[in-house]
Amino acid sequence: MNILILNGPNLNMLGKREPGIYGSESFEQIMEELRAAFPSHSLHYFQSNHEGAIIDRLQQCLTDGTQGLVANMGAFTHYSYAILDALRLLSIPKVEVHLSHIFAREAFRHTSVISPACDGMISGLGKYGYQAAIAWLLQVQQKSTEH
Amino acid sequence: MNILILNGPNLNMLGKREPGIYGSESFEQIMEELRAAFPSHSLHYFQSNHEGAIIDRLQQCLTDGTQGLVANMGAFTHYSYAILDALRLLSIPKVEVHLSHIFAREAFRHTSVISPACDGMISGLGKYGYQAAIAWLLQVQQKSTEH
Amino acid sequence: MNILILNGPNLNMLGKREPGIYGSESFEQIMEELRAAFPSHSLHYFQSNHEGAIIDRLQQCLTDGTQGLVANMGAFTHYSYAILDALRLLSIPKVEVHLSHIFAREAFRHTSVISPACDGMISGLGKYGYQAAIAWLLQVQQKSTEH
Amino acid sequence: MNILILNGPNLNMLGKREPGIYGSESFEQIMEELRAAFPSHSLHYFQSNHEGAIIDRLQQCLTDGTQGLVANMGAFTHYSYAILDALRLLSIPKVEVHLSHIFAREAFRHTSVISPACDGMISGLGKYGYQAAIAWLLQVQQKSTEH
Amino acid sequence: MNILILNGPNLNMLGKREPGIYGSESFEQIMEELRAAFPSHSLHYFQSNHEGAIIDRLQQCLTDGTQGLVANMGAFTHYSYAILDALRLLSIPKVEVHLSHIFAREAFRHTSVISPACDGMISGLGKYGYQAAIAWLLQVQQKSTEH
Amino acid sequence: MNILILNGPNLNMLGKREPGIYGSESFEQIMEELRAAFPSHSLHYFQSNHEGAIIDRLQQCLTDGTQGLVANMGAFTHYSYAILDALRLLSIPKVEVHLSHIFAREAFRHTSVISPACDGMISGLGKYGYQAAIAWLLQVQQKSTEH
Amino acid sequence: MNILILNGPNLNMLGKREPGIYGSESFEQIMEELRAAFPSHSLHYFQSNHEGAIIDRLQQCLTDGTQGLVANMGAFTHYSYAILDALRLLSIPKVEVHLSHIFAREAFRHTSVISPACDGMISGLGKYGYQAAIAWLLQVQQKSTEH
Amino acid sequence: MNILILNGPNLNMLGKREPGIYGSESFEQIMEELRAAFPSHSLHYFQSNHEGAIIDRLQQCLTDGTQGLVANMGAFTHYSYAILDALRLLSIPKVEVHLSHIFAREAFRHTSVISPACDGMISGLGKYGYQAAIAWLLQVQQKSTEH
Amino acid sequence: MNILILNGPNLNMLGKREPGIYGSESFEQIMEELRAAFPSHSLHYFQSNHEGAIIDRLQQCLTDGTQGLVANMGAFTHYSYAILDALRLLSIPKVEVHLSHIFAREAFRHTSVISPACDGMISGLGKYGYQAAIAWLLQVQQKSTEH
Amino acid sequence: MNILILNGPNLNMLGKREPGIYGSESFEQIMEELRAAFPSHSLHYFQSNHEGAIIDRLQQCLTDGTQGLVANMGAFTHYSYAILDALRLLSIPKVEVHLSHIFAREAFRHTSVISPACDGMISGLGKYGYQAAIAWLLQVQQKSTEH
Amino acid sequence: MNILILNGPNLNMLGKREPGIYGSESFEQIMEELRAAFPSHSLHYFQSNHEGAIIDRLQQCLTDGTQGLVANMGAFTHYSYAILDALRLLSIPKVEVHLSHIFAREAFRHTSVISPACDGMISGLGKYGYQAAIAWLLQVQQKSTEH
Amino acid sequence: MNILILNGPNLNMLGKREPGIYGSESFEQIMEELRAAFPSHSLHYFQSNHEGAIIDRLQQCLTDGTQGLVANMGAFTHYSYAILDALRLLSIPKVEVHLSHIFAREAFRHTSVISPACDGMISGLGKYGYQAAIAWLLQVQQKSTEH
Repeated sequence: MNILILNGPNLNMLGKREPGIYGSESFEQIMEELRAAFPSHSLHYFQSNHEGAIIDRLQQCLTDGTQGLVANMGAFTHYSYAILDALRLLSIPKVEVHLSHIFAREAFRHTSVISPACDGMISGLGKYGYQAAIAWLLQVQQKSTEH
Repeated sequence: MNILILNGPNLNMLGKREPGIYGSESFEQIMEELRAAFPSHSLHYFQSNHEGAIIDRLQQCLTDGTQGLVANMGAFTHYSYAILDALRLLSIPKVEVHLSHIFAREAFRHTSVISPACDGMISGLGKYGYQAAIAWLLQVQQKSTEH
Repeated sequence: MNILILNGPNLNMLGKREPGIYGSESFEQIMEELRAAFPSHSLHYFQSNHEGAIIDRLQQCLTDGTQGLVANMGAFTHYSYAILDALRLLSIPKVEVHLSHIFAREAFRHTSVISPACDGMISGLGKYGYQAAIAWLLQVQQKSTEH
Repeated sequence: MNILILNGPNLNMLGKREPGIYGSESFEQIMEELRAAFPSHSLHYFQSNHEGAIIDRLQQCLTDGTQGLVANMGAFTHYSYAILDALRLLSIPKVEVHLSHIFAREAFRHTSVISPACDGMISGLGKYGYQAAIAWLLQVQQKSTEH
Repeated sequence: MNILILNGPNLNMLGKREPGIYGSESFEQIMEELRAAFPSHSLHYFQSNHEGAIIDRLQQCLTDGTQGLVANMGAFTHYSYAILDALRLLSIPKVEVHLSHIFAREAFRHTSVISPACDGMISGLGKYGYQAAIAWLLQVQQKSTEH
Repeated sequence: MNILILNGPNLNMLGKREPGIYGSESFEQIMEELRAAFPSHSLHYFQSNHEGAIIDRLQQCLTDGTQGLVANMGAFTHYSYAILDALRLLSIPKVEVHLSHIFAREAFRHTSVISPACDGMISGLGKYGYQAAIAWLLQVQQKSTEH
Repeated sequence: MNILILNGPNLNMLGKREPGIYGSESFEQIMEELRAAFPSHSLHYFQSNHEGAIIDRLQQCLTDGTQGLVANMGAFTHYSYAILDALRLLSIPKVEVHLSHIFAREAFRHTSVISPACDGMISGLGKYGYQAAIAWLLQVQQKSTEH
Repeated sequence: MNILILNGPNLNMLGKREPGIYGSESFEQIMEELRAAFPSHSLHYFQSNHEGAIIDRLQQCLTDGTQGLVANMGAFTHYSYAILDALRLLSIPKVEVHLSHIFAREAFRHTSVISPACDGMISGLGKYGYQAAIAWLLQVQQKSTEH
Repeated sequence: MNILILNGPNLNMLGKREPGIYGSESFEQIMEELRAAFPSHSLHYFQSNHEGAIIDRLQQCLTDGTQGLVANMGAFTHYSYAILDALRLLSIPKVEVHLSHIFAREAFRHTSVISPACDGMISGLGKYGYQAAIAWLLQVQQKSTEH
Repeated sequence: MNILILNGPNLNMLGKREPGIYGSESFEQIMEELRAAFPSHSLHYFQSNHEGAIIDRLQQCLTDGTQGLVANMGAFTHYSYAILDALRLLSIPKVEVHLSHIFAREAFRHTSVISPACDGMISGLGKYGYQAAIAWLLQVQQKSTEH
Repeated sequence: MNILILNGPNLNMLGKREPGIYGSESFEQIMEELRAAFPSHSLHYFQSNHEGAIIDRLQQCLTDGTQGLVANMGAFTHYSYAILDALRLLSIPKVEVHLSHIFAREAFRHTSVISPACDGMISGLGKYGYQAAIAWLLQVQQKSTEH
Repeated sequence: MNILILNGPNLNMLGKREPGIYGSESFEQIMEELRAAFPSHSLHYFQSNHEGAIIDRLQQCLTDGTQGLVANMGAFTHYSYAILDALRLLSIPKVEVHLSHIFAREAFRHTSVISPACDGMISGLGKYGYQAAIAWLLQVQQKSTEH
């Protein structure tokens, strides 16, 4: 299965930023672990601090064969209606992931404006959230193949 | 690992209620699948439509050796501060699970008053959410054992 | 027709409580009058101060042949989303009744969280509200029988 | 008993408008049924799309012997404080009726600014709501006559 | 004087829960101290995690000779309008007690929906709050006896 | 000076309605007193329960020589933006009058949507409010004549 | 095509009112220009300051052959749910027009309660807004005729 | 009649401050005019920028024979609940006066927290507001003397 | 123990003001009773209608040996953030007292802006509230002395 | 006339996205039609998913001879204050266009933060909205040329 | 240049209060440093815990030759509209200073009601804020002298 | 000291935009003045209209030796939580600067979502704000060097 892992602003700093909260691994290391866990699948990775670049990348999914999406939009989660619209363009299964538990942090993080365009959300399970999201995408694909 | 799966009001009707949204399996069937998936662990199950019974059950966890909690509090999620307080009594890892994606439904379901007492949340992944929650609990236990 | 009259918290105190507002009859007396008014129909009665017991009772309606519901949920009307979910399980006709006129009392009583799961509401007509609700249930049944 | 049935804006279109929601009978037909159901009482009918005409008509009730009021103020229900004031002029029993269940429709219909001046409300019982309202008015009159 | 000490959800865990905030005594020990402080009075104790059981117990006070109430409703304080209604049934003097100072904690604890049915509130004085509440009840009784 | 006294809905019932609050005089009697108090001026009077009729009358003021306005818009005060617009058409001095003190009554009466188009407001001085308003209009005219 | 131009309160004062904002032409002159611009179509005009008269006129459209509506409801735009309901009776294409740009004026003008019943809105283009609205109605008709 | 004119913060600057809005007279000159207009009455004057001094002065009215109050509390109008309480101590007639029209200025000036303790308000009539307030106090006294 | 009883605006009028609510004793009489009840302790009393004088007095406590505070800030309770800051200067135990039950009165009295700087609150127990507050201060002192 | 048509995020997907709502034409086709409709004018087109790129482009208008702007900012309409500021830099006539009727869609689309910097808005008229906007720009230019 | 440094409630406790936040210097020491930094200018200092005394002092500035103002109003910043009005009396340049960063503290400190009457604000730069404010005042004076 | 001056959207237009508010100097000229004022320090400058580019630049500060930050985020100040997160990555001293006084402008500018990640704010002192911010950074560095 072709899966895109899409990370938003400041997630490129993982491992360098507040390790007490986010852990000391970089996301490159996490990608290696994910690829090791799902060896027979193609996991693509894209990160940007630019809202527009994320929208461009999401639109690309319409034509590049992406079959599932795992998206951690960082702070864009809380105000980017433009990303919401871009997510709505895609009819593939989509899961929203947050490393920390956003509902136990500051008030402005308790709202996700992109949730209505996603199929589910995993929050607060750390890097394992990405793994669970991918596993779920595979299940969904398997089921729709069986029909 | 000793894990309690705790379900709140109306979840005993699973399989009989809006199968288009919630699927046609009963939770008993789901428990069988979960036990099959984690054969070397003890998965306990408790469901109640009574807020007080749920609080009683949570307090029991202090002394009955429960090591992890997967809680789907149904509609109590949105107003039961008493369950929030009971969850705070427990220092074991706790994950909140919702079958449907609560942030894509009616406005009153966009708030979880129990989130501040949980370590994470999985929403909208259907019955797979329970499986991912258990897998995460096992990881957490493994890590804390390694130290 | 099989009809359930379901009363919520503190309605068992009717006749003992603020007679200036609620009248001096107990609900048992009102039930007798209702049964006298509709002699050819089965009117069942259940009251509880326990939210969970009310949900249990509503779920029972799925299998015990109840064909219509008259529900006065007392103060639960204003915050019990769990009862809302339980009401949604039932596809029989359902009417919400309030003895006093809830929209002319304190602000917190101006909201009914269970209304979206009911077919109608009668508020402020005293015990007559129950009679009107039953009469309407009979009309609805008659019509659907004629088709 | 002298009873005024007072209908507000657009209710003259009944039968021509969204029959799926409001039924296919005109209100003239409904009036005939009501008069047949209460043959020994005088049922007067007034409808207007003009807020001022409705206030004029309500004021007339002070002197024309009206003994009870059944009012369906249509959309005026949600903003006409002037009708609220006019209703307060009358000390006769007053019941608010809505054909559809206003609390299960758009948000702006969940508020009734005229409720504080009425004795009760019936919502969502279709044309039967008028019949129940009249029956209650008769009961109230009978009781006050007995004293 | 016959006084009921009524404790709500999670207060049975006193002494086992966050001793830094709530102290290390169990409520049973506090009851002993209270009985020692007021030897000539009957102090009854009831605790439940069940909203319905608390309402049942409050209704019992109408007939069991209870002359004063000291109520710590725990988290129910913040949303149980059903308990508010049950408190309104009782015309005996009633004092609301909170061990910690609820107005200096999380925002949702700054609201007491049961206050309008109580004569007073003591917040933040720890177990001494119960003692002061009882002393006040005795004063009130003494005064009304003098008249 | 040509002055229009403009009264809104239900003010024609003055003297017949809640005399404890509004006094027992009709507005016709009040007009006589006002004319007696200002014998050398033309006081015109218009009342309507119809928002549209009030707007028509206000527009007439553009051509009929009206030089000052005293307006008591009754309940329209709180929601009629159409009257606000009509008032803005007039460049003559305008005073808003309320018999009772609207800021000491129900919350919905604490807002005047027409205030931004008036030069002043008098509230709570009973019928004297009209007299003070007229006197102020005369002062304003006198000043602008002196220049 | 039979088109109704419907203007609400105070629009009869056009040309006499704040020419800096609204221009110095009367609406009669604007109607002449519109008729000259669309010589092969019937443009009917109706204006009223009376909410009820506007509702009456809208209801008439059900039977008088009106095929398209251009409505500038003036201040009624912001609170008349009764006009909203009347507009919903009509299945012809409907465009809302505002001479000034209502979203750049006072806060209360930023809401249009009638928008949900219209197909589109033109705001701030002055009298040209009417012309654009009619042109769009003709396009819509042409398309539906082609099918 | 003994009348106290009570002015709050910054009103001692009258005549020196924004003459375009407040006029160029000092309040001492205005007091002279008021005394000339009501030669047979005792008009006392007190101004302070100190909230506490105003409360002290109001309490004095309980014993110094003051029979009526004209109060312009300046900006204290909008937040001083302590002055509200002091006003409630007095059972004499009380009128609130504002030189400018507070409801046509900034939003924070649209609320008067002291209004519930006053009999009426005059806003926007300039210095004439004081004169109208005194005239009304005299009328009230005359009436209560006649009884 | 050195204890300061600090009363805010209008509490000097006790006994003269609304005796139905506040009792007919002056606070001087209450102080005598309190001193009689705690003969071996120094009870100091200060009252002012001046916010600034109260802040000055609170600052004095830093150097005059005050060991405990009982504060009834009257209406300042609801808006004086300056008193909140002054209370925060003091590390002695502090109890907030209200004679009437502020949470059962007007809405603006349901908020205490000074609560976050106090250890507890007693509301609605009349003059007994002061006695209970002092007794608690003595207990706290005794405990900290034992350590 | 030199006119810039500026489109925001996701509008490059027109024709590929929800054709039921937005039509099946790409914007390139729409541009051809617009150029055909206004052959004697220069219509420039720019689209970007990047907020910053849009701001850069707007700033360019200060020096590249653009004389009018038609802007459809997509989802940026609802939160980009930075684009608002950029629009304010330009003194040319500016019209906001929305293909669908934004006031009849989700709540977050009912707000346009860029409206205060535009001269008008057209919403819900589909691609015709662009045409009407250009026609209005031409009229405005013509008028200002005539002076 | 004649500059007034004006400090509000509790700022006289500087150095004695929470040194971790506010530093251990008294304001007298800070004044010495400021005077040393600006030896050729007259820096006057006034502090009070009394809102009225601060207003009195501000009014004095109209006549005592004050040419610039540096104001730290402490907690009055958040609710004293009376100080706002007093600041508006002065046409000299005025800067608001806060020692700590008020926007990073409790929610009630995020609002400054006096900002609209000041030319600028410096928040969170500690005692250096006063120095920067004075330097800016000198620059402003120099510029206006050059003209 | 190595200091970054970071400017957000539209600040590159300084000198070309509303000179009445922002002055007629370009920011390049201001940078020259700042460098002249602090000749022994390295002042770096970066401006972008792209939110992502600003985040990239902030992240660079982790490795390029930047020791202090002066940030004027323009309109991003009011909604960019992504910039807030990026600012939190940096542990160097950070000051927020605004040329105009944002609290005296439109309501949406009264909120700064980035304030919680800054040490202080200077608003409304024009270009001098940058100078004061740099001076403060130097003071802070000097102090931490002395320890």
